[in-house]
Amino acid sequence: MALHVVIMAGGKGERLWPLSREGMPKQLLSFGMEKSLLRATIERTAALTAKERIYIVTNTRIASSVCEQLPDVPPANILAEPVGRNTAPCIAYAAAVISLKDPDATMAVFPSDHIIKDPGRFIDAVNFGVSTLKNHPELLITLGMIPDHPETGYGYISPGEALQQDRGLVLHKVNSFHEKPDRDAARRYIEGGYLWNAGMFLWRVDAILREFRKHTPGMYDDLMSLRSSMSAGANEIASFYERVTPVSIDYAVMEKTSSAAVIPAEFGWNDIGSWDALGNILPGDNRGNVLSGDVFVEESSNSVVFSTSKKIVVMGVENLVVVEGDDAILVCPRDASQGIGAIVRKVVP
Amino acid sequence: MALHVVIMAGGKGERLWPLSREGMPKQLLSFGMEKSLLRATIERTAALTAKERIYIVTNTRIASSVCEQLPDVPPANILAEPVGRNTAPCIAYAAAVISLKDPDATMAVFPSDHIIKDPGRFIDAVNFGVSTLKNHPELLITLGMIPDHPETGYGYISPGEALQQDRGLVLHKVNSFHEKPDRDAARRYIEGGYLWNAGMFLWRVDAILREFRKHTPGMYDDLMSLRSSMSAGANEIASFYERVTPVSIDYAVMEKTSSAAVIPAEFGWNDIGSWDALGNILPGDNRGNVLSGDVFVEESSNSVVFSTSKKIVVMGVENLVVVEGDDAILVCPRDASQGIGAIVRKVVP
Repeated sequence: MALHVVIMAGGKGERLWPLSREGMPKQLLSFGMEKSLLRATIERTAALTAKERIYIVTNTRIASSVCEQLPDVPPANILAEPVGRNTAPCIAYAAAVISLKDPDATMAVFPSDHIIKDPGRFIDAVNFGVSTLKNHPELLITLGMIPDHPETGYGYISPGEALQQDRGLVLHKVNSFHEKPDRDAARRYIEGGYLWNAGMFLWRVDAILREFRKHTPGMYDDLMSLRSSMSAGANEIASFYERVTPVSIDYAVMEKTSSAAVIPAEFGWNDIGSWDALGNILPGDNRGNVLSGDVFVEESSNSVVFSTSKKIVVMGVENLVVVEGDDAILVCPRDASQGIGAIVRKVVP
Repeated sequence: MALHVVIMAGGKGERLWPLSREGMPKQLLSFGMEKSLLRATIERTAALTAKERIYIVTNTRIASSVCEQLPDVPPANILAEPVGRNTAPCIAYAAAVISLKDPDATMAVFPSDHIIKDPGRFIDAVNFGVSTLKNHPELLITLGMIPDHPETGYGYISPGEALQQDRGLVLHKVNSFHEKPDRDAARRYIEGGYLWNAGMFLWRVDAILREFRKHTPGMYDDLMSLRSSMSAGANEIASFYERVTPVSIDYAVMEKTSSAAVIPAEFGWNDIGSWDALGNILPGDNRGNVLSGDVFVEESSNSVVFSTSKKIVVMGVENLVVVEGDDAILVCPRDASQGIGAIVRKVVP
């Protein structure tokens, strides 16, 4: 039951517009760090398995950029979706590919656009999860982030009965999944010991296929047709994506299955869901300004300023986001930066 | 005593950086209006005199751009300073040129980078001033703007005894000139009926030359050498500017002469000395935002946003200036926009 790692890299990263664009989304960018988020994700998972068992699910538009960034991943492992259909079809597609190669595979699924400050503890949590699948082969395990504030931007997981533990890590049954809460609910969730849903999963490939058959039988049938086409040397991926309904893995499977489990974990995780979040992660100057590129800042504090090509002069502001992309410039308060996705859909053709 | 009009167009316009640049300063820009400030100035003065008697003093760097913008002004009337030495040498140079052609000339001096909303009343004030010079040929007349708020960014003029009046316009002796005041002094000035110094002058060319001889004898001697060289068909302008000391006409002459006079006037004058001032002049949207170019603004008010080439998205801000120039972007609160000149000198090589 070798571990196969699936990296989901099809996101548009709209909330980090205008640096992140459809043709060069968040996961391909480095935001002034050493490596792109995708590259950092791949290097982190290299401790888990061989490169030949790492798969990237992305979209046709950026597939060649992904290949360029990952010369060490076999090009055949870069799976390009013709259209984005949320996470359930993406995971199903990867599960079909993996199950053809190795029906006994264990499968890990990670986003490509998150930051993990302590990769060692991340690896420990994954390895613990993989080991528990030997005793509990039916489980769909998710890594639940131990929260440090009542965030309203994430879904929450309520952990239940402990099933297994080892060196500080515990596997729990999942009591329930919860959508992004309002401020009050978020506070209650924190007090109740709930965890953030970070979209990271571990399961046996046969288990997830069984769950798809049970909860999304239509998609499962189409997936089996796709898999047959692949084993016959064809690849009817276009017709699978034409037919499939967009749905998240949480909604399609995790919230419905009786086999959900969660490992509470803490490894400096951040999904960089906004410029504000990025400003909290990257190192700032002595007034808390996070600056990148040709930027001159005076009498300003706690601002996030990213220049791509032009000199940016910022004077006398606080808590402001100023980002220059290739063909657009964004200016907004940090606490409004979560709302950029909606604006982008309005203004970008 | 024909009227010769001198337009001073050598300014760097640093306070409207980054749209205004050394190679394309404020006076050559239109800021979303129909014409450049210089072009509008020329068209305004066309009601005063023939194009052949309009002179532009500018600098060698932008002289060709000035010629391009003003095809109807004789190229010989575009006087290029090799270096900027403030207003006294600029006016002296123009006076030498004019006095050679017409020793009996009346001379008007106007900045090229101001806005005048009511050109009819401007023309009336100038014509009144010109007519008073028949009775008072020794006077150095300035147009004093009737203030509507205690501005700290302008110099003030205290008017004295009335010398002559006609149809609501009055010529006063000047009691005194005052440098830019602090807030309290500005309030006292307003209460005392003081006027804003707008840098607009009217005098006979022989009168201003006489005053130069009296108050700046060194410059006067050099100016006479320059004039002799011009009348001999040479033009030793470079050596004049090499030797001359930088000094304003106010400091060199107006504050020292006993012949200063002022005409209080009101014609919608604004020197657009900052992005804030420009935001007060140009028409705004229903939330007071002044926008130019490819700009999208949401939940924002009283902001000034100028795009040159990139789409600018501004969300959730108030009283902010966001300006994209060719190679730089400025972001600052409107009330800090007066201070940009100092920043530009720091950051622009």
